[in-house]
Amino acid sequence: MDAALIIDEVRLTPVLISDPPLLNTQGVHQPYTPRLIVEVLTRGGVTGLGETYGDSKYIEIARQLAEALPGRPVTDLNGLFPLAAEVCGASRATDDRVDAGGLRGVQTADKLRLSVVSGFEVACLDALGRTLGLPVHAMLGGKVRDSVEYSAYLFYRCAGHPGAAGEKDDWGAALDPAGVVAQARRLARDHGFTSFKLKGGVFPPDEEIAAIRALAEVFPGQPLRLDPNGAWSVETSLYVADQLAELLEYLEDPAGSTAQMAEVAAAARVPLATNMCVTTIEEVPEAFASGAVQVVLCDHHYWGGLGRTRELAALCRTYGVGLSMHSNTHLGISLAAMTQVAATVPNLDFACDSHYPWQAEDVITGRHVFRGGRLDVTDAPGLGVELDRERLAVLHRRWLDDDGAMRDRDDAAAMRVADPRWTAPAVPRW
Amino acid sequence: MDAALIIDEVRLTPVLISDPPLLNTQGVHQPYTPRLIVEVLTRGGVTGLGETYGDSKYIEIARQLAEALPGRPVTDLNGLFPLAAEVCGASRATDDRVDAGGLRGVQTADKLRLSVVSGFEVACLDALGRTLGLPVHAMLGGKVRDSVEYSAYLFYRCAGHPGAAGEKDDWGAALDPAGVVAQARRLARDHGFTSFKLKGGVFPPDEEIAAIRALAEVFPGQPLRLDPNGAWSVETSLYVADQLAELLEYLEDPAGSTAQMAEVAAAARVPLATNMCVTTIEEVPEAFASGAVQVVLCDHHYWGGLGRTRELAALCRTYGVGLSMHSNTHLGISLAAMTQVAATVPNLDFACDSHYPWQAEDVITGRHVFRGGRLDVTDAPGLGVELDRERLAVLHRRWLDDDGAMRDRDDAAAMRVADPRWTAPAVPRW
Repeated sequence: MDAALIIDEVRLTPVLISDPPLLNTQGVHQPYTPRLIVEVLTRGGVTGLGETYGDSKYIEIARQLAEALPGRPVTDLNGLFPLAAEVCGASRATDDRVDAGGLRGVQTADKLRLSVVSGFEVACLDALGRTLGLPVHAMLGGKVRDSVEYSAYLFYRCAGHPGAAGEKDDWGAALDPAGVVAQARRLARDHGFTSFKLKGGVFPPDEEIAAIRALAEVFPGQPLRLDPNGAWSVETSLYVADQLAELLEYLEDPAGSTAQMAEVAAAARVPLATNMCVTTIEEVPEAFASGAVQVVLCDHHYWGGLGRTRELAALCRTYGVGLSMHSNTHLGISLAAMTQVAATVPNLDFACDSHYPWQAEDVITGRHVFRGGRLDVTDAPGLGVELDRERLAVLHRRWLDDDGAMRDRDDAAAMRVADPRWTAPAVPRW
Repeated sequence: MDAALIIDEVRLTPVLISDPPLLNTQGVHQPYTPRLIVEVLTRGGVTGLGETYGDSKYIEIARQLAEALPGRPVTDLNGLFPLAAEVCGASRATDDRVDAGGLRGVQTADKLRLSVVSGFEVACLDALGRTLGLPVHAMLGGKVRDSVEYSAYLFYRCAGHPGAAGEKDDWGAALDPAGVVAQARRLARDHGFTSFKLKGGVFPPDEEIAAIRALAEVFPGQPLRLDPNGAWSVETSLYVADQLAELLEYLEDPAGSTAQMAEVAAAARVPLATNMCVTTIEEVPEAFASGAVQVVLCDHHYWGGLGRTRELAALCRTYGVGLSMHSNTHLGISLAAMTQVAATVPNLDFACDSHYPWQAEDVITGRHVFRGGRLDVTDAPGLGVELDRERLAVLHRRWLDDDGAMRDRDDAAAMRVADPRWTAPAVPRW
């Protein structure tokens, strides 16, 4: 193997990035949220970039994996999985749950590890591509489209963070149908999005139904989605599905388990999507067999990287299940990775989600620009993005200076700033 | 995209290679069998090698695809599938069956096209690897093992071809348990194989049961397999499974349909393997849901190449189904490709099949050498094999000189040389 492709060093840089006060069923986004920037440096002098969750538990695993990588080639992507299992302890059973936020479905040590591997896999692919002069998509079999469509990600939100913490923005509050519509108009105007997803589970279902109806009036015939993150009972899910059957492209995770989703799917006249009950391959057979989901929202962070994303796409193709992409708060490195892999998947059936328009801060030199709601698929080497080391230092400094309050994302904690009695609601909430 | 990676020309060379008189339920291998050698030449002056079936129907499709490739990058592997569908006519329904030999299960235009694409995909990967100085496995995420295990492929056979046609060899006949055991001893001695597969469906089941028992006596505890190519009824399948339950690693395609396999699997005490009822992704869901197969024998020629082979591996991993590899008559290019992709698949659960020891002729400069039944996974660029142009010319000349009798494999036709009344038996034969 060419010595230039051997990993010399792995650098991990946790950062805190500003996040607007976006509401979900658990609470509200904190003023800052952690991300972990992964740099894989080769003996050939090339640096590959990756990005993943930055909470303490992820960093702990990432540090162990980072120590084990030097001396291995960046092409050894299949080997990252057994290596991660080895250095982080043997694969644990799914009942060995750890707490890592409530919006990702059941949390396990395996899931944490796959999320960490994803950041390393992307960094290795970026380093490989930069070394070879090839875009990442070329190392995934080549792009089948020249641009990837994204949808506008609408959130109920406050004008500012509770306690006036964090950075300010000029979006104002969106706490009712009119506010949601105004937000959608601005996202459509600024980025050209033509489909819209509303993060629900925040207000009683009838209010969210009204918001979708208001969107449908302003954007007639355009794809609309609603995602309450499993906040509803089967009965409520069916009620909402019935009310919005003619308006929704799909209803995302109305109920919180595969069995409940299957119950809803059996009677609903609208397809169900998920990024909660199908987040690992172990969850696929039951969900597909029971007809619980018609669309899987893949997230390369969840699934262990871009190669695994392509495998999930093959699974969906085989079983006639739709495919799109989920997004959590992320920076431009991950958006570049999403776009590269999305470009290679023939059965990308829906516009992908992205929080990116809500992220005012980034660690790359040039921000991604949506045109007509789409991102061009670059043919530049690797991911085609460059690290802004000054910004990285600033955002890392913020992480260093944090007293620990923001280093582990906790949407309920942020809510308690405004409402000290707040706890993440039990599900089903309605 | 680097101009060096753009395809300049595709060369197709049909060859006829000698084949011993190996028996199966359809008849006997003809003295010569067609293969198609694919050369993808890049503007960078690199030539990538691929190999696939060489019957007329495959060549016809390959010629159309070969004309469409110049100007496209060798990295555009995902694009080969829509391109092939486009240049060869739209994807046809599976009821649009074409005849292409009886051992591959139901034949469709889609399957033919995927087999052709596989040869081109491998040639593109070889060209890419040679250009970049990387082995093919590195472009599939990297090897997870340094050698790949193969099993001895035992055949009932005659000493020579009917009518004394074709090349001679010194193997002699193997038409009873003693002959099968002698063949197994020689293959084990020469290549170090430690597992054995007998191609069955040739003699009444009790004779084949006796052959497996004879093997088990000589190779106690070593993995044994029996493959009658769907020649048996459910009842016969269950009888053989019962007789050999303690001796077989798996029973391969005892019955001819997914439904029949499911019936056998439900009652048999031995796992069932297949390369007949699961040969495309469309066939996967029913076979997995019904429990018809416990092991899928992948063949990258069937599935559309090495990338699709990896996707099938992911499907098997997801559904807890075992994976190994099937082999049809092939040359050293395909064996190199099999070995490269097999090295990247974590869940390669069994030793792979290979006809290779039966192929005295090849188009590569140095034959593959099994050591301890295994092939080393080379890190040489591309597939790590070189074309022997003199041999290629000789074998192509044989194809040119053929009057058409051998250009389309027909095991029943070869049998008719000895027995003019022979027709491929109706299944179930027993």
